[in-house]
Amino acid sequence: MQLTLDQATGLCRMAALGAGANEEAAQSLTASIIAAEAEGLSTVGLSHFIDYLEALEAGRIDGNADPVITRPALAVYLSDAGGGLAHTGFDRTIDDLVKAAKLFGVSIFSQKNAYTCGALGYFTGRLAEQGLVSFAATNGPAVLAGSGSVKPVYCTNPMSFASPAADGPPLIIDQSSSATAFVNIRKAAEDAKKIPEGWALDASGNPTTDPAAAMKGAMLAFGGQRGANIALMVEVLAAGISGANWSLDAPWFTGGPDSPGTGLFVLAIEPKLLDPDFEQRMKDQLDRLRRRYGVHIPGRSRAEAAEKAKARGITTSRAVVQRISEFAERYSA
Amino acid sequence: MQLTLDQATGLCRMAALGAGANEEAAQSLTASIIAAEAEGLSTVGLSHFIDYLEALEAGRIDGNADPVITRPALAVYLSDAGGGLAHTGFDRTIDDLVKAAKLFGVSIFSQKNAYTCGALGYFTGRLAEQGLVSFAATNGPAVLAGSGSVKPVYCTNPMSFASPAADGPPLIIDQSSSATAFVNIRKAAEDAKKIPEGWALDASGNPTTDPAAAMKGAMLAFGGQRGANIALMVEVLAAGISGANWSLDAPWFTGGPDSPGTGLFVLAIEPKLLDPDFEQRMKDQLDRLRRRYGVHIPGRSRAEAAEKAKARGITTSRAVVQRISEFAERYSA
Repeated sequence: MQLTLDQATGLCRMAALGAGANEEAAQSLTASIIAAEAEGLSTVGLSHFIDYLEALEAGRIDGNADPVITRPALAVYLSDAGGGLAHTGFDRTIDDLVKAAKLFGVSIFSQKNAYTCGALGYFTGRLAEQGLVSFAATNGPAVLAGSGSVKPVYCTNPMSFASPAADGPPLIIDQSSSATAFVNIRKAAEDAKKIPEGWALDASGNPTTDPAAAMKGAMLAFGGQRGANIALMVEVLAAGISGANWSLDAPWFTGGPDSPGTGLFVLAIEPKLLDPDFEQRMKDQLDRLRRRYGVHIPGRSRAEAAEKAKARGITTSRAVVQRISEFAERYSA
Repeated sequence: MQLTLDQATGLCRMAALGAGANEEAAQSLTASIIAAEAEGLSTVGLSHFIDYLEALEAGRIDGNADPVITRPALAVYLSDAGGGLAHTGFDRTIDDLVKAAKLFGVSIFSQKNAYTCGALGYFTGRLAEQGLVSFAATNGPAVLAGSGSVKPVYCTNPMSFASPAADGPPLIIDQSSSATAFVNIRKAAEDAKKIPEGWALDASGNPTTDPAAAMKGAMLAFGGQRGANIALMVEVLAAGISGANWSLDAPWFTGGPDSPGTGLFVLAIEPKLLDPDFEQRMKDQLDRLRRRYGVHIPGRSRAEAAEKAKARGITTSRAVVQRISEFAERYSA
């Protein structure tokens, strides 16, 4: 069914409140979900929102968590999300983070003890809107084999990189360290379809094309050892620096009463301090790469989808809206 | 033949001086080459040193360049290498970079206008020795296809990530964005051997297993689109922020009189400000990953090789030593 962004925002906010989020958490979460859905990232949009609602209900997300944000050094913001959402702590900090990057040239947001954060490009994209180059990394419960291991030791451990460019949408790279997204394996299992080779191992550590076997085994990194090394880098940045749970120690995110307690790392750089012409040079280079060489520039299709969604709203399944509405009705009641 | 590290260092220093480097440049370059050779990274060690000597002789490296280092913000060091080595500017800055990271929590070194920099882990590894978590990226002349392109648009665009750990060698990830190193394709061509599928395209943009055709075509990123996105991120960090040549505009590094004018980006983070137990937690986690899950931890074998080289020296080919000696003799003369 079709919803305007305002309608979808209102519905999600009420549902989050109904599931036990306070006003601030409901707004932070809703803004991130609507942004993902509008950008066409449906796997981390409204359908994933139901995971959040169930997690709020079960206590895996504390909807009243009060993130404790400290500044251990002038360019570092450290957040203990207190078992709440990843978004609330970041939303409270982003203005200061931007100010620090503009003043010192670079700044860091590092958070522990949060629920998994959905679309990672949501964090970097907002910094790109402020003219900053940014990088983000996050972890979660272990599903991905390391370089040389056959058991899961990392989450899909995504990283995102964003850069502003003059007169156009930012570059936004937003990708997992795994060969595919976890939801793609779950969906293949539901549809009883095979998965391609190179996606996963079974519980004995052998390559498998059976999604059910894969879900008992381990996902594989993209690009072999190099991709697994990216997952390790993400793990150190997201969980190591912040003191968050390592993926191996993170409780599962769709069951039980415990927060996965994961980490989030966000770096912000003010490029105009280094090169005042940065945004124009980026525009020229991205145009050249795209027009003359056919290079796919990540972020453009997201921006175009978001523009469209602003004008025409979003389309989602009746079942998803119904499930979200159940939570919203509790709040009205 | 066998050389002690002192012998190799003395020979390289003299050869660099003979090729036209001043004392500072000769020392900076030699230290990086000997470190690579001692760590067993022979493709960026003594045999690659000859590329530097020839580049010094031809003027592609200005051996008397005086890097101009500015500090446009408190946590940012900006270097114009002036057509010289990448190493000199960094060596002049590293102490300040470390101080800034320890004071502000994070700092950046950004350099343009340098020759290609060899082993990238040399930069991050030295910061790890100072207790810092670090990331580095560098570009160079275009040899690698972008996501969706069939022509070269990036260099092999390596990235490196390093982290200290208690009571042991640092974690050092140091990998190109390409499926293989350029030297492996050049070597296959010399040996008239085929290369594996997935390494390269020919000049028409078709996959090839012929190394000669590959050298006229484009190398491929590791892991498809995700790897190509890493190359793009490296390009923006190394060349975009610094104002260096984009890979597409960089003169070739083994011919002609012009500096490739490439960029180098180095990020340093003081993790102990965020978590005083960071190094112990890293040690425990790396031990767990390695011992209980069989994960390959990059950096360990480098550290072990360097230890061995300190005691027993290094082994290199007579031809390489002879070629280096030709330059050294000029200096003595």
